[in-house]
Amino acid sequence: MMENRDMIPEPALRRLPWYLSYVTLLHERGVEYVSSTQISRELKVDASQIAKDLSFLDIKGKTRIGYEVPLLEHKLEEFLGFRREHRAVIVGAGSLGGALMQDSGLTRYGLDIVAGFDVDPALVGTTKHGLPVFHVDELAERCHKLHAGIGILAVPVEHAQEVADSLIAAGVRAIWNFTPYRICAPEGVVISNTSIYAHLAVMYNRMGQTSD
Amino acid sequence: MMENRDMIPEPALRRLPWYLSYVTLLHERGVEYVSSTQISRELKVDASQIAKDLSFLDIKGKTRIGYEVPLLEHKLEEFLGFRREHRAVIVGAGSLGGALMQDSGLTRYGLDIVAGFDVDPALVGTTKHGLPVFHVDELAERCHKLHAGIGILAVPVEHAQEVADSLIAAGVRAIWNFTPYRICAPEGVVISNTSIYAHLAVMYNRMGQTSD
Repeated sequence: MMENRDMIPEPALRRLPWYLSYVTLLHERGVEYVSSTQISRELKVDASQIAKDLSFLDIKGKTRIGYEVPLLEHKLEEFLGFRREHRAVIVGAGSLGGALMQDSGLTRYGLDIVAGFDVDPALVGTTKHGLPVFHVDELAERCHKLHAGIGILAVPVEHAQEVADSLIAAGVRAIWNFTPYRICAPEGVVISNTSIYAHLAVMYNRMGQTSD
Repeated sequence: MMENRDMIPEPALRRLPWYLSYVTLLHERGVEYVSSTQISRELKVDASQIAKDLSFLDIKGKTRIGYEVPLLEHKLEEFLGFRREHRAVIVGAGSLGGALMQDSGLTRYGLDIVAGFDVDPALVGTTKHGLPVFHVDELAERCHKLHAGIGILAVPVEHAQEVADSLIAAGVRAIWNFTPYRICAPEGVVISNTSIYAHLAVMYNRMGQTSD
C-alpha cells in the first residue's frame, strides 16, 4: 500500500478529496453503500476513472453494491493524510495569515498550526486565536522546539524568498506558499502553492468572457 | 485589446500574477527597467514564454532595455482585473468564511466583500470585521440590493450545492468555491475552485515521498 501511495499520479490525488466530500455527505445521511457509477453521476467524473483512482486505496468494492460508505470515508481520509497530525507554523500573522490561524477547518484535515511569527511589534508577544505569535528572529529555535515540519508562508511578496529560506534553515520539510511569489527551494523540500489571488484573476477573466 | 484578453490561454493567465509579484518587488526597490531574461532568471520560466505571455498585454518592451517597471506593473494589474472593483458576498461567515472576511489583501486584488451570510443565530445580525452578517434566507434580496456579482462559498460540504443554487438564483455571475465539493452550475456561471484542503493532501503525499 505504501508503494501504491507513492505511485498515485497527482491528477488522481487531486480528485480523491472530491470523492471524500461526497462520501462524507452520504455517511451523514446514513447511506450504507455507494458505487463508482453513483459517484460518477454526482461529480461528473467518468466511472471507470473513479474505480481506477480508488484502486490506489486499500479497499475493495462489492459487485453491484459498491463500497461501504464509512469504510471508504475512513480509507480516503487515511490515504490523504487527514487522519495524521502535521505540525505547522505560520509566518505572517497579519491579514491572510491571521485568517488562516483562525480557520479551525484546517485541524479537521490534519493540519495543526502551533504558532505564528511576525515582525510587527503590535503582534509579537500576543496570542491570536489561542496561538502564540513570536518574532521571526526566533524562527529557527522555536520551529525546532515545536517539532514543526510545515511552514505556512503568508508574508508580503517582498519577503517571501527570504522567509522561505529561514523556514528551510529552521528544518521544515514543506512550505505551503500563500504568496503569489515563485519561491525557490533545494531538492527534497516540498513547495505547495496556493495563490488565491491568481485564482481571482482567472475568475475575473472568465467573467469578462461570459458577459460578452 | 479586449480581443486579446479573451484569447489568453489559462496557463499563461496563471503565470501573469507571478510576473506581477516580481515586478511589484522591483518597483518597490526603485528598479526602472526589466527584461524577459531577468524575469526568466528570477522565476525559472523560459524567457521566450514570458515574452509570449506579455504579448497579450498592451505594452511593448524596448530592445536590450526591456519593459518599464511601473508601466508593466500597471498593465499587469489592469489586465488581471485587479484595478477594477468586483463586489462579492460570502456565504458561511464561520471559520474559513470569517477568515476571508478579515483578509484585507483581497481588496488589493480588486475583490470588495460587501456582506456575509450565515444560518448561525450567534452570527446573524452581527458585524464581522465591519461587514454585516445576514441570514441566508435574505440572500436573493440582499445580493440584488448590494449589486454583488460574485458569491464566495465557504459553507459545510453538505450545503455547498444548495447554497450555490441560491447564489445563482440571486443573480451572481461567478462562484468562488472554497468547499471541496464539485458544484454544478448552468452554463454562463463561472465556477472557480480553490480547494485549499486538496492542496494539503497533495503536500502531505509529497512529504511522504521525500522522507522515504
